Order: sequence, then structure tokens, then C-alpha cells
Amino acid sequence: MGTTKDLYAFLDYKAYQLRMLSLIMTTKGGSGHPTSCLSAADLVATLFFHSMHHNPRNFDHPDSDRFILSKGHASPLLYAAWKELGILSMEDILQYRSIHSVLEGHPTWRFRYAEAATGSLGMGLSVGVGMALAAQRDNRNAHMFVLLGDSEIAEGSIWEAAEIAHYYGLHNLVAFLDCNRLGQSTETLHGHHMQRYADKFHAFGWAVETIDGHDVHQIVAASDRARAQEKQPSIILAKTFKGYGIDYVENKEGFHGKVFAADELQKALDALSVRFEKAAHYDGDYVWHSVEFEPEQEKKNDCVGVSLDTISCKKGSMIATRKAYGRALALLGGKCSTIVALDAEVKNSTYAQEFEKKYPDRFFQCFVAEQNMISMGVGFDNRGKIPFISTFGAFFSRAFDQVRMAAIGGARLCLVGSHAGVSIGQDGPSQMGLEDIALMRCLPGSVVLYPSDAVSTFKLVEQMVEYTQGISYLRTTRMDTPVIYDADEDFLIGGCKVLRQSENDVVCVIAAGVTLFQSLDAYEILKEKGIYITVIDLYSIKPLDSKTIRACAKKVSFVLTVEDHYQEGGIGSAICYELAHMNVVIKVLAVKKLPRSGKPGELLAWAGIDAQAIVEQVLAEV
Amino acid sequence: MGTTKDLYAFLDYKAYQLRMLSLIMTTKGGSGHPTSCLSAADLVATLFFHSMHHNPRNFDHPDSDRFILSKGHASPLLYAAWKELGILSMEDILQYRSIHSVLEGHPTWRFRYAEAATGSLGMGLSVGVGMALAAQRDNRNAHMFVLLGDSEIAEGSIWEAAEIAHYYGLHNLVAFLDCNRLGQSTETLHGHHMQRYADKFHAFGWAVETIDGHDVHQIVAASDRARAQEKQPSIILAKTFKGYGIDYVENKEGFHGKVFAADELQKALDALSVRFEKAAHYDGDYVWHSVEFEPEQEKKNDCVGVSLDTISCKKGSMIATRKAYGRALALLGGKCSTIVALDAEVKNSTYAQEFEKKYPDRFFQCFVAEQNMISMGVGFDNRGKIPFISTFGAFFSRAFDQVRMAAIGGARLCLVGSHAGVSIGQDGPSQMGLEDIALMRCLPGSVVLYPSDAVSTFKLVEQMVEYTQGISYLRTTRMDTPVIYDADEDFLIGGCKVLRQSENDVVCVIAAGVTLFQSLDAYEILKEKGIYITVIDLYSIKPLDSKTIRACAKKVSFVLTVEDHYQEGGIGSAICYELAHMNVVIKVLAVKKLPRSGKPGELLAWAGIDAQAIVEQVLAEV
Repeated sequence: MGTTKDLYAFLDYKAYQLRMLSLIMTTKGGSGHPTSCLSAADLVATLFFHSMHHNPRNFDHPDSDRFILSKGHASPLLYAAWKELGILSMEDILQYRSIHSVLEGHPTWRFRYAEAATGSLGMGLSVGVGMALAAQRDNRNAHMFVLLGDSEIAEGSIWEAAEIAHYYGLHNLVAFLDCNRLGQSTETLHGHHMQRYADKFHAFGWAVETIDGHDVHQIVAASDRARAQEKQPSIILAKTFKGYGIDYVENKEGFHGKVFAADELQKALDALSVRFEKAAHYDGDYVWHSVEFEPEQEKKNDCVGVSLDTISCKKGSMIATRKAYGRALALLGGKCSTIVALDAEVKNSTYAQEFEKKYPDRFFQCFVAEQNMISMGVGFDNRGKIPFISTFGAFFSRAFDQVRMAAIGGARLCLVGSHAGVSIGQDGPSQMGLEDIALMRCLPGSVVLYPSDAVSTFKLVEQMVEYTQGISYLRTTRMDTPVIYDADEDFLIGGCKVLRQSENDVVCVIAAGVTLFQSLDAYEILKEKGIYITVIDLYSIKPLDSKTIRACAKKVSFVLTVEDHYQEGGIGSAICYELAHMNVVIKVLAVKKLPRSGKPGELLAWAGIDAQAIVEQVLAEV
Repeated sequence: MGTTKDLYAFLDYKAYQLRMLSLIMTTKGGSGHPTSCLSAADLVATLFFHSMHHNPRNFDHPDSDRFILSKGHASPLLYAAWKELGILSMEDILQYRSIHSVLEGHPTWRFRYAEAATGSLGMGLSVGVGMALAAQRDNRNAHMFVLLGDSEIAEGSIWEAAEIAHYYGLHNLVAFLDCNRLGQSTETLHGHHMQRYADKFHAFGWAVETIDGHDVHQIVAASDRARAQEKQPSIILAKTFKGYGIDYVENKEGFHGKVFAADELQKALDALSVRFEKAAHYDGDYVWHSVEFEPEQEKKNDCVGVSLDTISCKKGSMIATRKAYGRALALLGGKCSTIVALDAEVKNSTYAQEFEKKYPDRFFQCFVAEQNMISMGVGFDNRGKIPFISTFGAFFSRAFDQVRMAAIGGARLCLVGSHAGVSIGQDGPSQMGLEDIALMRCLPGSVVLYPSDAVSTFKLVEQMVEYTQGISYLRTTRMDTPVIYDADEDFLIGGCKVLRQSENDVVCVIAAGVTLFQSLDAYEILKEKGIYITVIDLYSIKPLDSKTIRACAKKVSFVLTVEDHYQEGGIGSAICYELAHMNVVIKVLAVKKLPRSGKPGELLAWAGIDAQAIVEQVLAEV
């Protein structure tokens, strides 16, 4: 280990290494943010080689400390640190930002040591909150360290995270603020007025220390004190200088995201070696040791092949799918021990409260702060939990950047949006999820599900647990709908149900949710007139059951889609896209103008997505 | 006017009226949030009948104070106040939440006295910031009053707004926090711990007072002091009780969003008349006077028929459309005096800095806080400005709820998103706008534009100024692209350009932005082989030029769309939808998996949206 004195020289040396590697990487890569690395190098060196109790070869052990790089543009520092830990080679490092490298411009899922994709600012603290909270509930002695930039403090999501961290008493959460004064194009809001930051975090209930972020003695002391906190989360406000170490860029505007050209690199490296002369000639014998963690006992994964009892979904009874979701989630909690539920203070609308009643320790109230809630979910996922995150479908739009980044980070989240469409009625358009399908379909690797009744809700919740490849979204309905399926009916991701079909069908109607029932009503009306239609329950909107849809479409004169969603990006749009290579005529009934308050039935008629509208479309064409 | 003593009795009386009307309205409407109105009735009565210097019949006079209801679920209070001001009738009030009424469950554009659509929480303060800042810059002595709920204080957007209000020294902004302790399903984060709120707003640089929110004496005194502030924005933290005035619901959980049944209404009204006995028998002679404002001189609208000089867009030269946008905006500033520009600390990437250089007084740095920026834009729009709001296309996803609500509020915003698609290269997926078209297309009444060169950028910026019906979005590209159009070419919303067409065309290629140039390259390669294709520049993605697209599509064996956007919700999706009723085969080239860092050209090839991919698709089919 060596003496304490050796430690500081060692950390200075490591910081020097990180600085050099950051310059080399960004010059070689041809782009990047070297000056943003230079300001934080001392912090990162101290974190990785002193503050964190971890083992790079066992980095995700439950007792290991973890590091989240919130200022994702400083990715070279992250990669350099893992190189210094022996995980990456110099060859890896020199591939920074190239198309075949996992060392991307901003961290993504492809670098497995990155806890989250960052690069959209203001999310790392929330990821840390989720991870710290998961560790707390598992009684794990693990600390989460988050490196924040100062520009991102303007993002509201930071303050959502700050408050929730305090609310849950996350003393195992330690944030470092790399306060280098300069943003991308101008000075940050507070520049070097450290007191402004201190006042804010104090007011949000954090333990706060302000230090010189280039003095490893101060960084060590502050992080030791933070690690010893027993009640509050801690933030260390580190006054730093952008470009620190190279005089001609240090603390100067105009050098954000500017790399040193190949022919300037040596000059920059020389400047570093002069500035950090001692570190450049370090010959100390301090040896950093990784922590040897006790091996974990293999735990049985109780989340595979989960089957939920659908006895409460009596065929013919009226149950809103949001209520069915609540019941299913509560049952799921009893079968699958890693399920957690997060809710944005609407648990009595989403029915996530059913889970809370049974498993209060695994239910996390996130209050009306959707952005933090989503990134907290990423943190829970990092620690082996399966987060079910619910709010109104409309309000996922509040956190869509976080959802987008979760997808880029390869996080596995189960999202559930209630109050879909105009059928919610009188509360009006602000509360209606009308673009949620469009948003969720955009995400690479996402699954979008939309059950119509309680049985299919139960079965699709089971499917979400099985889906480990990314984000799954379940859309639920406010109003009661009849249970139409048998209790043992199967529902698979990528499937659909052909509920009505005959040799005489003229039109194939594709619907889901409330409009499925309108379609079934239309079927009856048309049948009276001797006109037959196919009716498909498209409970899996992404992926689609292409084979069935195509086969049904071929048999009729046109396809009619009906949905309680805007016309862009929803069911109709998905079907038009899917059948675009076929000679099939498709008509789309959807919400095509801004809705208003009204009774659910009135609004379905107003939008032209009720049984009558379907009947009229069919009659007009046959 | 009467004596001061009369004032307080009068305000108590008005608060009583507001309470009664809120109960009547919600019972009649069959849904709503009466208990959330009861807590804030004294605040709203005092605001409308004392604090605000306004004239209901001239409410949008530039010198008039304005009111923003951030807690939109308390809409009955808003409508009741305007009823008491003589603008709405009792008949109007009784139509609350019915499909033909403009008095929706949460305020929308349909009630013209609502400054913004609210109901998604945490946005009203930002709207107030925009309005207060616009008034400040116009040297108008107008105050903006915002009523906040306590649940919404958890939303990060509140803290974005709080900081920006302080940054711009908005002493003409006064917020009231209706701190009624209870959220929708549980106690709020801070309950009645008023000091927590006070500490936070203090730390964010606000003047803070804590009062009893049911004592009109205290409300009057505090709002008078707030109105007299000369440096800081003010917040009045009003300790209130949810359901105040009706003992059996007051300060009790379980009554959020619960209306009194028709047969319980009289009991509730009776309870009010007992509790507020004096107010119920008010017979004072206090007379409230509206303010008579000086008539404004009619100003010439200099934003009609604006023409920008395209001399800097030399045909054949290489100019990124983001740079062209900056230049166009700077020119626009000189022609149109109501243009303002907002930027989220990326002005040197979006090139909004070109506007700032020329018109610094009309440029507003919003820092990395996109949510507040969008709602600030709504505020600017409310005061007659035309806000051009720019950031990376990807980062509009951070504020999509605000954009959604702006559309519901009928706001006219000009949004400009740079760094579209994988063609940005090495920075990686977090920085790539790949779902921006999908998001913006969803909005009712939106316009989505995507220029390929500098001339079309200039012309489309002109078109955005002409578009007064809602939100317009312009998508710009990071890399330089050649100027291909003549300086006087016309570009209209809803148009497209057929750049290549012959009698022998086998395929119709539809593209925009960077893929247009890939399509033109493919044209040349195929021409060498004696194969001809139509090439269309779809610069207006919404609305689409259906007529031209359909006519071109009819002449070929298939349509091929090519775009630097995810396959969902973009150009291909729009074309599939548009042509769904025709027997046309469509193939879509788009980004179909999660991208990565790499060189722009490499990534276009990787995604299969470059010239080579187009050539292969055409050759495979002909």
C-alpha cells in the first residue's frame, strides 16, 4: 500500500496519465472534448484509485462501489481510467470514436463498464439515485459515485434527483461537481460562484463541501468524509479549470469540444509534462489494491416463466386494463423477487398502488418528477432489479429524453402508461396519451403492447418480465372494458388475435384497446346487414404479427385500422408501413385533430373512431 | 373604492363566491378537482380583485398584469374568477367540461383568457418567466402572477424556471405557492414544512414570504410587497388546506379529484355558508375597479411577406443548413422586430449565435434547461413575440411534454433542431436527432420542414414566420452540403421539389436533407447504367405535397424513401401513410437499429441510407 504521502503523488501521477490519454485519444479520434477531461482528471483519478472500494474484474459485485459519468462528453477520462485499471489496452484506447470500437464519443451500452449511456446532460445523478436506493434496500455496503459537469446543473432533472436522494436518505450516494466554469458556448450560470451551488444543494438537503478540484489532498479528504456520511447524500463542489494543465487553453473560452490537431499534440503533451513535472517523473512505489469481495451465492432467477393467476379476470366482467395491471403487478411481486415498482404520484390512477399495498419495500414513490423516475429505473436495472415504471401515458413525454437514453444504454425498463387516448373523457387533452405509441415505437429494440382486456393485460405483464432486451411499454385504458378472453388464452410479444373472420369478409379491421370493442360492435351492426368483417386485436403493436396481418389483408378489399391515438406513429401508421410493399389499400381511423373535454363516448364519436364511424367506412366502400 | 377594511371583507366574499362556483361547476360537470380549488380560492380572489392591475376587457394590453394558472386542475377557480369579472356567464359556467364548452377540464387554447394550456404540471412558472422577460425588455410595467400547486414543485422544470427568473432579474414575476400539503395519492414531498420550500427558493435567488394562505390580510400584504420588488422574482408560500371550508373533506386524504355528488352538493354549499358566514352575508360597498390603460398605437406588422436576401447562399458552395439557419435568422431579426431567439447553450452548434451577435437584446440564453426554454417561448408568444427556439434535434425530446402542451395551448413556436441523424458522426447516438420528425409530426397543426441546402433553409425560415397556426419545426444538418437551388427558387409549406424525372423512371426516390444528396449521387450512378429514377426533395414533411407525390408514384414501379431518421414516424412512415389508399409499393431506407460513433460517411453506409444502398435497392427490383 505504501504511505499516505505516497498516495498523493500516486494520484497526481494517475491524473497525469488520464490527462495524457485523454489528449491522445481525442487527437487520434479526431474529435471529442479534451478540455472537459483536463478539468476532471484529478477527481476521476482520486475516485478510481482511492475513493471507490471496487474491483475492476468484479465491478458489478453487489458490494462494489460504482461510478457514473454524468458528463458523458468526458468519456475519454472514463476509458482512460479503465485502461489504467488494466481492463482496456492502449490499442483499445487508440480506437476511440471509430466505428468498430465500443469506446464511443459518449458512453453507450457497448462499453459494459459504463453504468449508463450519458451525453444528454443531467441524467447521471438520477441513475446514481436508483443504484444507491437499490443498494440501500439490499443492505449492501456499496457507494455510488457520480461525476457531474457544471453546465448540467441547469437541467431540472438534477433537482428532481437531488430531492429524491434526500427523501430516501441516500448517504451512499456521493456526487462530484466538476465546476470548471465554462459551458459549451458561454460561461455557466454560476461560473465559479461556488456558494450558489452550495446554497442550492444545502437547501435540497445534501451534505456539501467545496474544495479545490485540482488538489488531490482535498479530494481525498472530502471523499473520505462523504463516504462516511450516515444520513445524507453528499456533494463535493470541486472548483476546477477547463483545460487545466495546458496554459494556452486553460480557463479560456472557445475550446469546448476542440481537439488538438495531430501536429499540435506533442506541444500539448509537453505542456502537461512541464506543468505536472513531478507526476511526469513519478517513481513512487504506492500500490493500489482492488477489493476482494466475497463470492456471491448463485441465486435462483425466480423471474423466468412466471405465470399469474387470472382468476380475478372473470370473463364478461368489466375491468379497466389499468386496474388489471395493478392486480397483475401485485401478483408478480409475489413470484418475482427482483421486481420493483416506481410511480410518479399517480398510483391511484395507474393502480401501481396494488403493488405498494403488498410490497411497500419494493415500491418507490418518485413524486411528480418523471425524468428522474425513468433514470432511477436505469439505476435499478443496473443492480439487477426489474423496474415497472408507471404514470399517465401522456406524461412519458415529460421524460422521453431519459427513455431515449435508457434505450441507448441498453437498459431494461418496463414502462406502463395509463389514461390512453380521448376515451379518458372530461379531463381533456393534457391528460390524454395520444402520442405515446409513436414515441415508444421509435426506440430501437422496444416492445409496444396494448391490451384490451384484463386477461390479456395479465398475460402481457408476464411477457414484459420475459423481455430482457430493452424497453417494453404497456398502454392501459382508464375506462372499464369487458373481459373477452378465456383465462388461459396465450398472448405473446409479436402476436395478435383474429377475433372475427369468415370467408365472406370484405374488410379487415385492426384495432386495440377501446377501439377493439368499437370494432366488435361494428361487426355486429354490419352482420345484421349481411356484411362481414375480419376483426383483429393488435395487442402487440411492436413487433407486429406480420404473417397474420398480411394473410388477413390479402383476403379483403381493404384494411381499416382504428385507434385512440394520433394518426401519426400509431397503429395505422405501423400497419401502413408493414403493408407498404403489398398492393393493399389501407384506411386509418385515428385522432386527427386536437381533442377536448367531453364524455368518453362523445369523444370517440367526435374523433371518428367509434363503431358508427367504422360501420360508415365499411359501408362507403363495399 | 371604499375603505381598506371593506377590501378584506370584499375579498373574503369573492373567495366565497369562487368556492361556491367551483363546487357547483364540478358537480354539474360530473368530474374535476373541487378540493384543489378550495385551498387556493383566497389566493385567486385576492389576485384578481386586488393584486393584479388589469382590465378584464382589455386583458392582453401590454401594460396589464397577467395571471397564469400553473395548477391546471384548479381550472374551476380560473373560470369562476372570469365569471366574477363579468366575462363568463353562469350559463357558461354550468357547461364546464361538456364537449361544446370552451371551459375544459384543464385550460386549453379554447379559453382565450388562459395564458397557457396547463394540466401537465410544472410549466406555468416557465410561461410566466417568458412573459415577464418580454415585458421587461419592452419596458412595460406589467406583472406576471403565477399560481403553483405544491405537488408540481417536484418537477425539475420548476427549478429551471426559478434559476432563469433570477438570472434575468425578473422582479415583475410573482409566484404564489398553494401549499395545501396533499397530492393526488399521498402527502407531497414537503407537506407543510414551509421552511423547505423557503430554503429552496432562497437558494435560487428569489424573495420569499411565508403566509397563511387563507388570510386575505396576509395575502394582500405579501402580494403588495412582492409587486414592489425591484430586483428579484418573488414567491409567496401560502400555507393552505386542501378542501378548506368543508370540514369533512378539509385536510384529509382521499379527496383529490373527487366531486360532490349532485345530492351532496347542497350539504357542501351549506357547510361553506356556515364556515364563511360573514362572506355569505356580505353587504359591503367596496367597488373593484379595473385599470383603464392608454390605448396602444397600432403598430405595423413587419413580419408579413418577409424576404431574406440569399446572396450569401452561392450555388455550388458548401454550407451546412444549420449555418444557413443562423444567417437567415440574423437577417430576419433586421426585418421583423418581434422575432426573439432562445437557445439552450448550444448557440455555436445551432448557429443561433449569428442572431445574438446582431440583436443581443432579443437573444435569450436559456442554458441547458430545454423544458423551461420551450415554455418560456409560450410566454413570449403570449406577448406578441415570435420565438425561434433552437437546440439539437435530439434534445427537443427533453422538452417534448412542454412542446405537446404548447400545441394544446395553441402557441405559435418556431423550433429549430440541429444535428439531425447519424450523419453527425463521432459524437454518437446520444447527440443524434433520430426521432425528432416522429415527435414533431404527432402534434396537431404542426409543420415539419427539412431543408437540404442553404437557399431552401432561408426560404423555409421565411415560411415559418408566415405560419401563425401553431408549431413549426425546422430540421438542420451538421455537415456542409452543397447549395443546389437558385437564389430565387420558391419553397412553400406543403410543397416538394422534383429534381430529377424522366419518362423512363423506374423508381421514385423521396428524400430530404443529407439523403437527398445520396439520392442525387445514386441517380448519376444509375444513369450510367441506363436506369432512370425520379428524385424528390421532400423539404416539407408535414404537410406533404400529396398531389405531386401521388402523381410521381403512379408513374414508377415502386417508391423508395431514404432518410437519416429512425424508420418509425419519419419520411418513410409519412409516405406509407399518405399512399396507403393507393396500390403503390413502397420501400423504406431509414435507420433501423441503434447507431454508434463513426465517421459520417461510414454511418450513412452502416445504416444503409447512402447512395450505394439506394443503387442496390433499385437494381434489386428492376
